[in-house]
Amino acid sequence: MFESAEIGHAIDDDTYEAALPSLREALLEAQIDLHEQAKRQIIVLINGIEGAGKGETVKLLSEWMDPRLIEVRTFDQQTDEELAHPPVWRYWRQLPAKGRMGIFFGNWYSQMLQGRVHGQYKDAVLDQAISGAERLEKMLCDEGALIFKFWFHLSKKQMKLRLKTLKDDPLHSWRISPLDWQQSKTYDKFVRFGERVLRRTSRDYAPWHVIEGVDANYRSLTVGRLLLEGMQAALNKVEPESSALTIGPLAIHNNERTLLDSLDLSLHLSKEDYQHELIAEQARLSGNLRDKRMKSHALVAVFEGNDAAGKGGAIRRVAAALDPRQYAIVPIAAPTQDERAQPYLWRFWRQIPARGKFTIFDRSWYGRVLVERVEGFCSESDWKRAYAEINDFEEQLTEAGVVVVKFWLAIDEQTQLERFQEREKIPFKRYKITEDDWRNRKKWPDYRQAVGDMVDRTSTEIAPWTLIEANDKRWARVKVLRTINEALEKAFARDKKK
Amino acid sequence: MFESAEIGHAIDDDTYEAALPSLREALLEAQIDLHEQAKRQIIVLINGIEGAGKGETVKLLSEWMDPRLIEVRTFDQQTDEELAHPPVWRYWRQLPAKGRMGIFFGNWYSQMLQGRVHGQYKDAVLDQAISGAERLEKMLCDEGALIFKFWFHLSKKQMKLRLKTLKDDPLHSWRISPLDWQQSKTYDKFVRFGERVLRRTSRDYAPWHVIEGVDANYRSLTVGRLLLEGMQAALNKVEPESSALTIGPLAIHNNERTLLDSLDLSLHLSKEDYQHELIAEQARLSGNLRDKRMKSHALVAVFEGNDAAGKGGAIRRVAAALDPRQYAIVPIAAPTQDERAQPYLWRFWRQIPARGKFTIFDRSWYGRVLVERVEGFCSESDWKRAYAEINDFEEQLTEAGVVVVKFWLAIDEQTQLERFQEREKIPFKRYKITEDDWRNRKKWPDYRQAVGDMVDRTSTEIAPWTLIEANDKRWARVKVLRTINEALEKAFARDKKK
Repeated sequence: MFESAEIGHAIDDDTYEAALPSLREALLEAQIDLHEQAKRQIIVLINGIEGAGKGETVKLLSEWMDPRLIEVRTFDQQTDEELAHPPVWRYWRQLPAKGRMGIFFGNWYSQMLQGRVHGQYKDAVLDQAISGAERLEKMLCDEGALIFKFWFHLSKKQMKLRLKTLKDDPLHSWRISPLDWQQSKTYDKFVRFGERVLRRTSRDYAPWHVIEGVDANYRSLTVGRLLLEGMQAALNKVEPESSALTIGPLAIHNNERTLLDSLDLSLHLSKEDYQHELIAEQARLSGNLRDKRMKSHALVAVFEGNDAAGKGGAIRRVAAALDPRQYAIVPIAAPTQDERAQPYLWRFWRQIPARGKFTIFDRSWYGRVLVERVEGFCSESDWKRAYAEINDFEEQLTEAGVVVVKFWLAIDEQTQLERFQEREKIPFKRYKITEDDWRNRKKWPDYRQAVGDMVDRTSTEIAPWTLIEANDKRWARVKVLRTINEALEKAFARDKKK
Repeated sequence: MFESAEIGHAIDDDTYEAALPSLREALLEAQIDLHEQAKRQIIVLINGIEGAGKGETVKLLSEWMDPRLIEVRTFDQQTDEELAHPPVWRYWRQLPAKGRMGIFFGNWYSQMLQGRVHGQYKDAVLDQAISGAERLEKMLCDEGALIFKFWFHLSKKQMKLRLKTLKDDPLHSWRISPLDWQQSKTYDKFVRFGERVLRRTSRDYAPWHVIEGVDANYRSLTVGRLLLEGMQAALNKVEPESSALTIGPLAIHNNERTLLDSLDLSLHLSKEDYQHELIAEQARLSGNLRDKRMKSHALVAVFEGNDAAGKGGAIRRVAAALDPRQYAIVPIAAPTQDERAQPYLWRFWRQIPARGKFTIFDRSWYGRVLVERVEGFCSESDWKRAYAEINDFEEQLTEAGVVVVKFWLAIDEQTQLERFQEREKIPFKRYKITEDDWRNRKKWPDYRQAVGDMVDRTSTEIAPWTLIEANDKRWARVKVLRTINEALEKAFARDKKK
């Protein structure tokens, strides 16, 4: 994989100087056009051997293009806020907005390589990291991002020579970090695992480019030209490429019985049983969240359901059990301008709780496969690929110890009608009922199908859906609380086994 | 100040239960109306004696109102990211958006009181913190925020009783933190300094409310009613109150000579001197930013100037000296939707560099007293109070070790005309010239006056303006770099003296 990057590629100064002006102009133009279009963020990953010109190249790119549209990010030590969140959170928070360029030094690849080279784990864990990176990049590209991955290479001999030269140069000796010296000892391992990573993560939508780092003219022009080519190609595509052609059909629904039909909506609780059980479950939740084992977890509860199914009331009963300093409630409405300038999941990543905390989502990322699907706010390929993206997202949460609980509050059409009419009568609840609600109601069968597909495809062993029979509000509230408690206690029990 | 909060206010259960439903309904309605209006954020500060019902009251508020529009924030230990920024940064990052409510536990008041009670500093420093809080709150209110400040009080005897009761109650003993016990020892000091703080920071726009904490019915109803009254009053005002009536005139300009006239725009550098000096200053800057003393500072450079004065070119020459990992360039354009839902300075606080880092603002918070003033994008009272707000903002930066350098790049009208015409000719620079530029040009005298006022009122000893003669780009670029270097070296020298 690295062979052709050890053969001494070089470009002489005259050729370089001659090629530069038009390249710079074209790069700048492409950058500005992409900025005006504001449909894609450009993500440039910089990896490879120390001393192979990574820093110099990034510096050149900032000179050639408009540096005001470029963000250079380094990911060294994690901050304590980053350590309290799933590992990938730090990258999400630094994503450039659409139209801008983010250059990521020390990205997910350096993190996985360092861990493997220093023996913190074996190939199996490296492979997990690799497939995580693959899925992340696929999702970003599907959302319009343009990803360039550059691996700067030097042969072992060249690297040693380079470090020696730098050391002897008083003007540049500061450039060599302890890391560089360390790498000279681990070169063989670094290259071996690097090959594995490159092989597994070079994909059509985000291929690796191996750049021979010895000759500055060669590496600069090569990187510049690759960037230009990619940016121009992206500009010439009117829409971000869609994988629509390769999207398979969902299960066929011939009006057959779905999970929702199998719910017994007559389930209910008497007032006395409710009072009793509600208080018991609230005390249990309060205890669970104060449990010291909670320190290695976070809790995410997702509330979806039919309009007027009682999401708000159920959320209030959950919150009532708790110290308001422990939880946050995030109501999800139409995305803001800043949120639209990012991949779909970005706004949810922003709200993921730190360890020990609890976030309640009143509607959620499932909007994509519910309202956005039914109302046509996104393309078919967007919502069809969302199932897998959401499963990946939730896997990243649960792997970091986040307990994910998801509720669909189900009522029947008649109950909804009664509640709508009741809301219209009470002045104080009138804000809860809008034209939209009446309109949505007409799409009942569409939503029913969307919910069925959603549960089929995203109810997983790590983050199962719980369908709540919500015709009786009391029954629903107690079941919600009990489900959260059981999920937390199951997570605590698993901790013990480890 | 606390006397009337030690006389045993109480409300019996029947009265409480009778008053509650209409209070809750009215609170909810006011909350929803303010949310729909989306013109003000509601900030509730919770302070006072431990055990006086702070937590319980906040919990009630979340139950009474729609908790989805409420964010409860605690400010305990600073995270390492917070420690790397000016102290007030942690509050700015947690401000609720307009239309939402933020309840701040452990806010700026608790921070200043803890420090004083535990003898970390004397009254003089406390008074500085007090006046900082006052200015912050005044600015937030002027920007539309609604601030409620509640001090929950208990007499010493009552506090001890309360802690004892809690301790003996197995269901509640977990509620007592070590901090509570500590406070029982420092009660007298806490109350004495608390009085000083309350006296100095109770202002018409954000008064303190002292709440006797013994009786839960009394304190809950009182807080609820105060909130309701304040929220309703705010709703009844069509516009956030303006201090326009009390705003004095600026200096009268009778076309007299301004600072801008005193600039010698013929200053220039030969090509050879430029090459030589540019490289020298760039090397000096690169060295300064690598200096280990930089670790206790951050650097902020503000670039303002006439259109086509060469801001972009100067910024690129500064950036060219540096490792792209060290700096960020922030171009300031029209605010986004999320930014408009916050006080004016919020978007700049977000971009303030952490210690050791450098942020370049390409246009800045001075937009308020330049383009917004000239174009009428904000009211007269808004831009007139902005001078003092900006000085406060920069003081908070410099006190935290941030070096603030501000440039006005000045050219004359003829030079601007030539550069506009030149830009229109070169295809590659054409994006730089728009209709807006030609229109702005007609407002030359207005901008000239705005710049004069700006420099008069915001060129301070801690963050002076540097006017750059920019008819000659070479001269301008070298002067910019030299000014930054001198500012950094002055800051380093001051460190030594300490």
